[in-house]
Amino acid sequence: MDRRALLAAGGATVAGALATRAAAAPPSPLRLIAVEEAWACPEWMEAMAALPARGLEEDEVRAFQMLAHIGDIHARLLDMQLRQAAMDENAVDMHVLSLTAPAVQSFDNASALRLARLTNDRLARIVADQPRRYAALASVPPQDVPGAIMEIRRARRELGLNGIIINSHTRGEYLDDRKYWPLFEAAAETGAPVYIHPRTPNPTMAPLFRDYNLWGAIYGYGAETGLHVIRLISSGLFDAYPDLKVVIGHMGEGLPYWFYRIDHMHHNMVTLAKPPLRPVLGKMPSEYFRSNISITTSGVNWHQALAFAEEVVGADNIMFAIDYPYERTEPAVAFIRSAPLTPDKLERIAYRNAERIFGIKPAS
Amino acid sequence: MDRRALLAAGGATVAGALATRAAAAPPSPLRLIAVEEAWACPEWMEAMAALPARGLEEDEVRAFQMLAHIGDIHARLLDMQLRQAAMDENAVDMHVLSLTAPAVQSFDNASALRLARLTNDRLARIVADQPRRYAALASVPPQDVPGAIMEIRRARRELGLNGIIINSHTRGEYLDDRKYWPLFEAAAETGAPVYIHPRTPNPTMAPLFRDYNLWGAIYGYGAETGLHVIRLISSGLFDAYPDLKVVIGHMGEGLPYWFYRIDHMHHNMVTLAKPPLRPVLGKMPSEYFRSNISITTSGVNWHQALAFAEEVVGADNIMFAIDYPYERTEPAVAFIRSAPLTPDKLERIAYRNAERIFGIKPAS
Repeated sequence: MDRRALLAAGGATVAGALATRAAAAPPSPLRLIAVEEAWACPEWMEAMAALPARGLEEDEVRAFQMLAHIGDIHARLLDMQLRQAAMDENAVDMHVLSLTAPAVQSFDNASALRLARLTNDRLARIVADQPRRYAALASVPPQDVPGAIMEIRRARRELGLNGIIINSHTRGEYLDDRKYWPLFEAAAETGAPVYIHPRTPNPTMAPLFRDYNLWGAIYGYGAETGLHVIRLISSGLFDAYPDLKVVIGHMGEGLPYWFYRIDHMHHNMVTLAKPPLRPVLGKMPSEYFRSNISITTSGVNWHQALAFAEEVVGADNIMFAIDYPYERTEPAVAFIRSAPLTPDKLERIAYRNAERIFGIKPAS
Repeated sequence: MDRRALLAAGGATVAGALATRAAAAPPSPLRLIAVEEAWACPEWMEAMAALPARGLEEDEVRAFQMLAHIGDIHARLLDMQLRQAAMDENAVDMHVLSLTAPAVQSFDNASALRLARLTNDRLARIVADQPRRYAALASVPPQDVPGAIMEIRRARRELGLNGIIINSHTRGEYLDDRKYWPLFEAAAETGAPVYIHPRTPNPTMAPLFRDYNLWGAIYGYGAETGLHVIRLISSGLFDAYPDLKVVIGHMGEGLPYWFYRIDHMHHNMVTLAKPPLRPVLGKMPSEYFRSNISITTSGVNWHQALAFAEEVVGADNIMFAIDYPYERTEPAVAFIRSAPLTPDKLERIAYRNAERIFGIKPAS
């Protein structure tokens, strides 16, 4: 089948895609590494539950409280047996685990570093116990740059974790600010990819996303994280650290669909005005998605968007992710196993890129 | 050629698309109606120039001042001979004109209504003089709801204009607020499509978009307008006014690429939580793009994005636009004439949908 026929078979509309999610995936030996899989431990849950529901973290605390009452999300974050059952039932080989958002970014500096160390130690133990089923990303506190740098080095050199994760803004600030660049320097120096994961929108814009509960995965997470990533690109970060690898979820947080307009306007603003209206960068903004930024499929089990992303960022820069336990495993697995791609491209997206980018040992 | 071959010929990357923009379009009898074409008159320019650069309109005034120094944008907004030359040189049959953003939305109520009447009268004169070359949308002041309703009715019933245009927020407020719904009622009652056009981001979130000049067409306009449209959908506006037609530019202001996630999360938030975490709507959010919302190609001369949009919103809901004079006519025309679509779909996007939606008389 050609791509169009494959897409049609999968349902060309969102309604079709949602309807076909329940279809059983055919048996397949395709290795599956899912790279944005949330986890938590009781100590972190208790610390989050003790945060006051006011001030900068107001929206995050409200989000945490809301999730406690939806389905069994909190139980599934904590329970490794439920997790492994979901993996086994759907033939998912590996989860790349990370402490769920906002990880340690909502806490005072001392608590944040203590919780980062505790959770990173716990994750390292899980990986050591089952190295063929789990890899993990370390959480670090951007609000404490020296502490975060120490923890990046410890996580890589002592714990052997596979990268780090930072959940968008910290106290309303973004990582394009030069005071945070030493974090990226430490990541580049230790070869750690940095997963920029969503969290509730920056307090400055949060009021606009509270109505209709637009703050979360429905729209606000993408608005928050897409803005963060275009700020990183605009700052010249990837020119300063050409080996730095950043990973973003949710099929690129909306950015691939904007590539033409971002590149075109960036080019115009640099070349048509004197002085330039934009920072002069080493590449066109979209080109950093070939050299420094990879995207994952988390939460977007949609063949149309995958096909578009594959065309514009390339099969080497996309990784499979489920977003467990916020998303169900079965439809994500059915989506990737039935994706209208050549077997070679499918293997890259399903596991080979994850092996390369996160330093995961091949199955052999 | 199949779609993939056509896309490859057009350059599968943004760099390729930008490089091929200069290629001459083959001679073609395809009628072209461009539906988001900016215009201004000296009285409006003078009123904008007199606005103070502080307070709620701070970013808009800065944007206006910046554009005055880029190329010949201001001259091209004003000069109908320059405009007609650009149309003739590129065989563009018609511009649907509108007063450039933020139209009358930055002014006090009395000035806003006076300028709306003046500019709408001026546009009606242009259309009356050259009805085969120009159609026009009326500007109205949302900050003065009774005045705006009077002007919608006058523009439709006395001036015969083809719809109305509103430039996203007004004094930081969005049109999903029920106090603005009488505007949509007047639009629906008079059969006027409402073009929701971008402007500088809401003052509440503007600080996050000032760095790197992200506030404009490069990213901020889309962030602002996409949020506005998802707020309109979420409010139940289209359930209340099922015949209401809304038009949005820039290949859908980013929303089509999010359809899966918006629909999926909306569905979960309505069905999994009691009480529901989202308003219960008559349709899935993306389905309003089939029934009530059309998109235009303004500023996105990119075959990949057009092909994706055509798959997910349908060829009946896309219209060609150039965004003159902010965008050059030649690459927009080369883009649409070489689009990898069937002749029937191409005709719908190039002019037939515009004739239907804006009530424009067919060519003969």
